[in-house]
Formats: sequence, C-alpha cells, structure tokens
Amino acid sequence: MSGRLAVVGLGPGDRRYLTPEAEEALAAAQDLYGYGGYLDRVPVRAGQSRHASDNREERARAAAALDCAASGARVAIVSGGDPGIFAMAAAVCEEIEAGPESWRAVDLTIIPGVTAMLAVAARIGAPLGHDFCALSLSDNLKPWALIERRLDAAASAGFVIALYNPVSQSRPWQFAKAIERLSRHLPQSTPVVFGRAVGRAGEEVRVVTLDAAAATAADMATLVIVGSRDTRVVARPGRLPLVYTPRASAEVSA
Amino acid sequence: MSGRLAVVGLGPGDRRYLTPEAEEALAAAQDLYGYGGYLDRVPVRAGQSRHASDNREERARAAAALDCAASGARVAIVSGGDPGIFAMAAAVCEEIEAGPESWRAVDLTIIPGVTAMLAVAARIGAPLGHDFCALSLSDNLKPWALIERRLDAAASAGFVIALYNPVSQSRPWQFAKAIERLSRHLPQSTPVVFGRAVGRAGEEVRVVTLDAAAATAADMATLVIVGSRDTRVVARPGRLPLVYTPRASAEVSA
Repeated sequence: MSGRLAVVGLGPGDRRYLTPEAEEALAAAQDLYGYGGYLDRVPVRAGQSRHASDNREERARAAAALDCAASGARVAIVSGGDPGIFAMAAAVCEEIEAGPESWRAVDLTIIPGVTAMLAVAARIGAPLGHDFCALSLSDNLKPWALIERRLDAAASAGFVIALYNPVSQSRPWQFAKAIERLSRHLPQSTPVVFGRAVGRAGEEVRVVTLDAAAATAADMATLVIVGSRDTRVVARPGRLPLVYTPRASAEVSA
Repeated sequence: MSGRLAVVGLGPGDRRYLTPEAEEALAAAQDLYGYGGYLDRVPVRAGQSRHASDNREERARAAAALDCAASGARVAIVSGGDPGIFAMAAAVCEEIEAGPESWRAVDLTIIPGVTAMLAVAARIGAPLGHDFCALSLSDNLKPWALIERRLDAAASAGFVIALYNPVSQSRPWQFAKAIERLSRHLPQSTPVVFGRAVGRAGEEVRVVTLDAAAATAADMATLVIVGSRDTRVVARPGRLPLVYTPRASAEVSA
C-alpha cells in the first residue's frame, strides 16, 4: 500500500507567505520531515511525528520520507521558499530515480512557494522585471569553472542575476570571486541588492554598487541580485530607493 | 496627503495559491486596478471600486493607480503570478521614475506571489532544480536579435530555460524560431515541459522532447520549460513522468 508525499514550500519565513495549499498539506501530514530550522516554523499539531535533520542531509531525508510514504503514511517534507528552487524537490526526484520501484508509486505532490528572490525583489522594486537567471554559488556539487562560465554567459547577455547560497562557512572566497568575474562584463555602477532574512525577524535589505559588493556582508540567509546594464535606481525621499529593470531593452551587443 | 499602493501577486490562479499577505492587501484596498481577467479572480467586497483595463495598457493602469494613491486612497493593483516577474511591478516603477514627485512619496508595497514557472515546475517534478533563467519571448519591447543572443548564452552555458509569453496572436513565429535556436546547442532528446493554465480550470501539462517542441501547441497561458543537458526524465507507472534537474552538475565545456 502506497501513501502520499507532499514536498511543501513554506515561503520566505513568515506565515503571511504560506499559501492555503501548503497550510492544508501540513495539516494533513502524519509525519513531517525537514531541516530543523524549517520544521520549527510549522505549528505543532497533535498526532504528528516530526523528523528533524541537518541542513546537509538532503538525500538521506528524502529517502527516509519516501520510505515512510511507501509504507502507507501521509508524509510532508518542508522546504524554505519554493521546494523546486535549490531545495528539496530535486533531492526527492534523485532518490526516486535511484531507489526501489515502490517509491515511483508514491503519490507525490510538490507544493510551490514564494522563493527568496521573489521576496527580495518585491522589497526593493522590480529588479527581476525583465530577463533574469538564478544561480547557486555553491561549488559543493559543481565545479567552480562551471559557475564562472555561467556568470560570464549571464552577465554578457544582459540577464539580471539572482545569486543563491552566496557564502557559507566552508565557502568563504566564492562570493568575492563571483563579483570580480561579473565586473569584467558590467559597469562598476551596476546596482546590487542584498536581502537578508527577508520575510523573517531581522530582515535587512541593502543596495550598493558593483564595486562595493564584494566587501558587503553576506551569509547563507542572504540572497543577492546583481542588475544588468538596464537596471535603474530611483531615489525616494525618506525611503529605500527603488531598484528595477525596465520591461524594454534595446541592448544587443555587450 | 499621500496614500498607499500595493502591487499584489495573485499566484497562478486558484485561491489556494493566494498568500495571507495578498489576501489582506486586497481586503484593505478602496480601489482595485488590473487587467479584467485578473480582477475577476478577486472576490467582490462592498465599498471597493474596480477599474479594469486591457492587457496591453500596463503603463496607463500604473499611472492611474499612482494618481489615485497620491490623492490619499488605499489602492491595489493586481497581477497574475508574481508582480515582479514580467508583470506590473516594473511598469509601476517606470511610471514612478517618469512621473511627478508626489508619486515617489506614495507608500508602495509589492506583494510577491507564486510565479508561473514555479507552479509548472512543481507539477512535473523539479526541472528548475538547478541553475536556470527566465526569458520572455515577446519582442514587443526588445529586438528579436537580443532574444536569440540570450537563448544562445543560456543554452550553451547549461541553464534550464523558462520561457514566458511564448506565443500570442500577434507573435505567431517566435516560439518555433526560439526552439530552432535552442536546438543548435541542445540534444534533440532534451525534455521540454508545457504547462497551460496551471493552477486554474483547464490545467494541462505535457512533456515532449526538443525535436517535437516547435509543433506542440502553446499560447499566452502557456509556460514552457526547456531542460539543460543535465535534466532527466523518470517514468512512473500510471502517472506523468518526473522531470528534474539534479543538484549536481559536472559539465564545463559545451
């Protein structure tokens, strides 16, 4: 007998971002799996079991949740933001492909959420208002040379760039190196937005220019958006400036 | 006296995707602006005025809403999906930059939502599970040569590509041309996901290979995701296959 597995996006943090669909899936689950920090955001309900695991144990967590669902339970794995963007949905799919036949029979639902770049962009205007890309700066699972190649391609073709996982304790130099790489293609005055813990306690949003970005503090809770040549900054009295990328673009050559 | 303007993301359609934050902003508004099709999704409340406009009148709609807010009203502009992704937030920022000083004093809030590519990706697995870009195929506001350049850059660097606005009545040939362009860089077996009206009545999701993509029906309600060389398809008994992009990538050269 096969049960159900919901991979649930919690949004950027606060329950104001949790969709009714996500709320329902959390309420219906018998077993909840997730990184402890995300599970802590889910209200405790009687009769539910919680299985917290460390941030790095994504595949083991996915396998345990699939096992539990395949045995007939209603299971939810929680993910910050959207589960499909640098989060648990890919890990679950990897396990299903590699795992026993019974895992393919699990009734799998992936429940989208507001991913970090949307929340940060909304706070400052519309920096993702035209063509953009999302790139993880973690070189744990891909070579640094590939990251550089993607930074080159994106910046020279005029994409705005959202950088996920800019810095961690074990990856101290990658962010400054990425900014240096982008500086080969973009003017020093290009706007760069740092959004930290957006949607949660301690939220902080800063706008700097590219030449000051490498020296600006970032951590695993930070999402960085690097503008294109088209991105504009509009000063406002007594408020943060607006940063936005117009819908029209004339640029063809770099 | 300056009022408030909320630019509200409704998500992909169904109210199950509407965040509590968006719900609140809609309830608090005195005047609602938007494309008629989006306004129709918002429940009618006593005392609210509705100002529906055509899909193409984005700047005029933004200007009217800013005028209304600057005169002291609580105003909401509604947007499908997320307002910051190929939607109203950029149009509002454009108007603020070009408009009278009083518009910069308006208390502007942008409320993020689940954008179409997240909803489509969730339905089929995790095609956006690693580095990806989002590109509008509309050449109303940018030259076609720039779109081709971005398609080349994204596909050759290994980004998964989400195509917004693939086809409209006035743009019948662009989608087939874009697929032809991507075929220069990607194998004919590359998975391509078509999600139509996802989250709404008449939802339809199809998975084809790149060589069949140009001949697959798409319209303005369709979001297309073209995989990278890393994107995988996992067959499942009695269900749609899973399409996902693994978190690890070894590719460096094209």
